[in-house]
Amino acid sequence: MTPKKIVVVGGGFAGVYAARHLERILRPEEAQVSLVNRENYFVFQPLLPEVISGSIGLVDTVSPIRRLCPRTRLYTREIESIDLERQIVTLAPAVRPRSIELPYDCLVLALGTVTDLSGMPGMAEHAIPFRTLGDALRLRNRVLLALEEADNEADPEFRRHLLTFVVTGGGFSGVEVVAELNDFLRRAARHFPNIPPREIRCVLVHSGEKILPEMSPGLAEYAQRILSRRGVELKLKARVIRATQDSAFLNTGEAIHTRTVVSTVPSGPVPLVASLECKKEKGKLLANPFLELEGHQGRVWVVGDCASIRMADGSTALPTAQHAVREARTVAGNIAAALRGGQQQPFAFSGLGKLGSLGHHSAVAEVLGIRMSGLPAWFLWRSVYWMKMPGLERKIRVGLDWMAGLVFGTELVQLRIQASDNITAEHFEPGELIFEQGDTGDRLYVIRKGSVDVLRDGALVAHLAAGEYFGEMALMSTAARTATVRAAEPTDLLAVAKGDFSKLLANFPEFREGLTDLAIKRTAQP
Amino acid sequence: MTPKKIVVVGGGFAGVYAARHLERILRPEEAQVSLVNRENYFVFQPLLPEVISGSIGLVDTVSPIRRLCPRTRLYTREIESIDLERQIVTLAPAVRPRSIELPYDCLVLALGTVTDLSGMPGMAEHAIPFRTLGDALRLRNRVLLALEEADNEADPEFRRHLLTFVVTGGGFSGVEVVAELNDFLRRAARHFPNIPPREIRCVLVHSGEKILPEMSPGLAEYAQRILSRRGVELKLKARVIRATQDSAFLNTGEAIHTRTVVSTVPSGPVPLVASLECKKEKGKLLANPFLELEGHQGRVWVVGDCASIRMADGSTALPTAQHAVREARTVAGNIAAALRGGQQQPFAFSGLGKLGSLGHHSAVAEVLGIRMSGLPAWFLWRSVYWMKMPGLERKIRVGLDWMAGLVFGTELVQLRIQASDNITAEHFEPGELIFEQGDTGDRLYVIRKGSVDVLRDGALVAHLAAGEYFGEMALMSTAARTATVRAAEPTDLLAVAKGDFSKLLANFPEFREGLTDLAIKRTAQP
Repeated sequence: MTPKKIVVVGGGFAGVYAARHLERILRPEEAQVSLVNRENYFVFQPLLPEVISGSIGLVDTVSPIRRLCPRTRLYTREIESIDLERQIVTLAPAVRPRSIELPYDCLVLALGTVTDLSGMPGMAEHAIPFRTLGDALRLRNRVLLALEEADNEADPEFRRHLLTFVVTGGGFSGVEVVAELNDFLRRAARHFPNIPPREIRCVLVHSGEKILPEMSPGLAEYAQRILSRRGVELKLKARVIRATQDSAFLNTGEAIHTRTVVSTVPSGPVPLVASLECKKEKGKLLANPFLELEGHQGRVWVVGDCASIRMADGSTALPTAQHAVREARTVAGNIAAALRGGQQQPFAFSGLGKLGSLGHHSAVAEVLGIRMSGLPAWFLWRSVYWMKMPGLERKIRVGLDWMAGLVFGTELVQLRIQASDNITAEHFEPGELIFEQGDTGDRLYVIRKGSVDVLRDGALVAHLAAGEYFGEMALMSTAARTATVRAAEPTDLLAVAKGDFSKLLANFPEFREGLTDLAIKRTAQP
Repeated sequence: MTPKKIVVVGGGFAGVYAARHLERILRPEEAQVSLVNRENYFVFQPLLPEVISGSIGLVDTVSPIRRLCPRTRLYTREIESIDLERQIVTLAPAVRPRSIELPYDCLVLALGTVTDLSGMPGMAEHAIPFRTLGDALRLRNRVLLALEEADNEADPEFRRHLLTFVVTGGGFSGVEVVAELNDFLRRAARHFPNIPPREIRCVLVHSGEKILPEMSPGLAEYAQRILSRRGVELKLKARVIRATQDSAFLNTGEAIHTRTVVSTVPSGPVPLVASLECKKEKGKLLANPFLELEGHQGRVWVVGDCASIRMADGSTALPTAQHAVREARTVAGNIAAALRGGQQQPFAFSGLGKLGSLGHHSAVAEVLGIRMSGLPAWFLWRSVYWMKMPGLERKIRVGLDWMAGLVFGTELVQLRIQASDNITAEHFEPGELIFEQGDTGDRLYVIRKGSVDVLRDGALVAHLAAGEYFGEMALMSTAARTATVRAAEPTDLLAVAKGDFSKLLANFPEFREGLTDLAIKRTAQP
């Protein structure tokens, strides 16, 4: 008998724990388990906000999947497509331009969700989501860059923009991010002698009347008091609806000048889930109580945040880590039952409690009906997550990190592996400046949508619309910008950095000719 | 009296230690010290190879400059230019497109060197230098990617290419890198069940007859024996002269199929040093015994690897960390003397000894005339560098890392902060395949130099030369490659990844029209 092929897609709590249980329950001659994930590690999400401040080592919040599931075959690849009819998962090419096809007998979909920034102009271009280790490191670097630049910024207004940080979403994720960020900024600022501490602003924007809507009102109020006392500004009953590189715009009409917007809401389906043709509920894959995908029973199971799981009592399972690890256990048992001809078990779990860190020795907790706050809740929070963290090694490393944190100061290293993106999308609101006369020319812009005004010495000299370029003159001559460019309406731009611009110019004749014609035309203008 | 302006450029051993000494010697009312560095941290180079294996935490080999020099004003910026006549250092823009001009009374040039890959076709495109923390992390990720891909590679030949690693240069740096890399690969391979350990090849290519030419012959032979026994292949009296994405070509005529080439030689001047108009010797800035730049005495001093320092006894100072920290102390004293009207002191130092790690509890050492090897030398190596590491915090963290390393296994996390470069340069040697018919189309190519043959079903259908594109068909239609493309001669290409290609296509009309014309022409061909 050839082993059955089980493919798990997704390496979060649901996927990794499903693979772990499958490894344990099924003998190698019964089944070969494969797991596909974009990264070769599992992220222990509850501790991810600690990466912002470096309270724990940069990689100590993640664990290599090969260690967690040693008998599972790991594919560190993107997924190109899933064919539910032919029962094949196709993996995108990596080093060589070759796809890999993985046929399956049983498929476990554990694809999670993404932060959906569509429908909010400029957010996809300028806001940082907070999901992955990459996001956490990007945020950390952005914050350190802002501090480094603010320390040497002569213009007090621009310095205040650099020192303003906006986090959207008052759920657990948003609260933990803003708390860690605020703690980190206030501790780190001591090493930046030219940054006045009072100029540091951390703003949490939340659509509800109280933050932490999952918590009881008393604890939510406690959390609000703690955050406010530590200097976090709360904007309640408000949402960020647009963003540019210099501002976050709220639905209340207020504009907050900031260079850093972190978005923790709203969740949406990953593109792969959106592309699957099967039954869904609010964008999530519809599962029966046995965690089988509706319409694909006995072949496809769904777990974790990508699933809408109708439990036996009629309620829907919550998208939390607690639920995901229990769904993983159930799904492994059900797959074993399906392979061996046994009886699948329905999924049932009502949650043990809720824990949220407020940073710096404070937290809120509701566990088994008991409400706690402050230091005891914080001890509980650390203890619970420390115990839940998979693998002894990571437990010890995180323990040592926490001890070191009691003794040592803030980690200030700005870890840039690569230069910033070379071709980027940018969004501007009416009246915002794209660049000013006299600035150094560091990129070329193409207008994708909207239009801009070109001003020389304060006088309007041109109006450019979608499809037109600007900014190429300073790049071609290494001179300073000869004009100021200002958005005339909500405008989307594509910015090509100097280095890439030179490469394109040197190698694409059409591009070069087009720009030369344009330069001649513009120079000929009065 | 206004404080004098002292600007230190470069944040390596020489620059950071110069700033530390200047802070101590000079009172704030005497001088304001500024330091300019690309990163906000100082790299403790001797331990950098340990980052490859994760034996020490990813950032524990670096220290924030703000902690090391708390009274120095730090500018985390690239340097745009240095004007020795007007006495101004101009910093490149960062967040905003504005340069910063720093006028100086005294300038300390501590710019270091770079690995100079020019003159070796394909090396700049495909080899990884080993200088910065970024380089070390990039190498680590490349190695983990190779392991991940090799584990799932069905083609045994390509798997061997993935599992071959070439390091060039048999000095301290090359030897330490190959030793760490080899140790790491052999330990990590245990977690990759489909990688046969015997297929892992680490090759050290060195131009001399013996590695470690700075060491006495006996110790060099010992090092060679240890490395060979652990599985490192030595290619002596050989140099890598060309590289492609799939091979390293030696001057002996041999080609080593590999996807990873690390280059530690040769050193060359940083572009900024090359652009300075002043006296130089072999590309280095010529300094008198007082460390003053020839022709700019009393205003400009030079220290570290960028300097050619003629000592009082007529010999030239060596480019090592030991020398750099002592030059830093001398330069600080001399600047103080220059400001206060005292007497400058000449620099003199003959070196205390040499230490080189061979990885895994083995090293070679020559200290104060005593030669050591094996475990005692390794203990000495660790102790010396541990003591030399600046700052108590980093000392303790590195100590903990080393202890954890005795207990725990290999760190396998592949830390990718950003996707790979989107517009890259590539080099191919005659006969090498750029892609094959049936491959997934993931990039468009432009020929910058050389020419390629296009083959369909084995038959030559076209020959394309410099300035022409190929690969656009598969990208525009999302189909597989309809032909194989092979380099006809040494060929340089520019590769534009799918994502960027789509952005360019959508936004640059000239580009789109040019490609459409080309597609029509090509489709019309028989």
